[in-house]
Amino acid sequence: AGPVAAALRELRCSCLQTTQGVQPEKISNLQVFAIGPQCSEVEVVASLKNGTEVCLDPQAPFLKKVIQKILNGENKDN
Amino acid sequence: AGPVAAALRELRCSCLQTTQGVQPEKISNLQVFAIGPQCSEVEVVASLKNGTEVCLDPQAPFLKKVIQKILNGENKDN
Repeated sequence: AGPVAAALRELRCSCLQTTQGVQPEKISNLQVFAIGPQCSEVEVVASLKNGTEVCLDPQAPFLKKVIQKILNGENKDN
Repeated sequence: AGPVAAALRELRCSCLQTTQGVQPEKISNLQVFAIGPQCSEVEVVASLKNGTEVCLDPQAPFLKKVIQKILNGENKDN
């Protein structure tokens, strides 16, 4: 259910489905892909500290809060 | 002045300096790196459609607007 490998990201959409409600503390890196030749939809991929990746809904209300927490450095889990 | 190569991102901070006021239309991909073992600061790296990368200030007021435009799919330049 995760996004496709990074090497393929240039060529097609990365996300087949999105995950609800990821904890900001689990996220190490968040990528927002604009609409482009590779995909006609906006895609948000969160890399988690456990090494996995999940896709998030760009329109999900919780996403704004997650982004803000990361930007503020408030998502440390220690 | 750009961020260091992706291959090095796991090992150290990516951004030496930040760029002011990038146009959302120019951005193909935005990455937000949480504070972690690789870097004690939050870092935001924008990949531009011309193939270059720039670092943005995580606390810059314009960044929220840029992110929102990308999430809403409003940053097409055609």
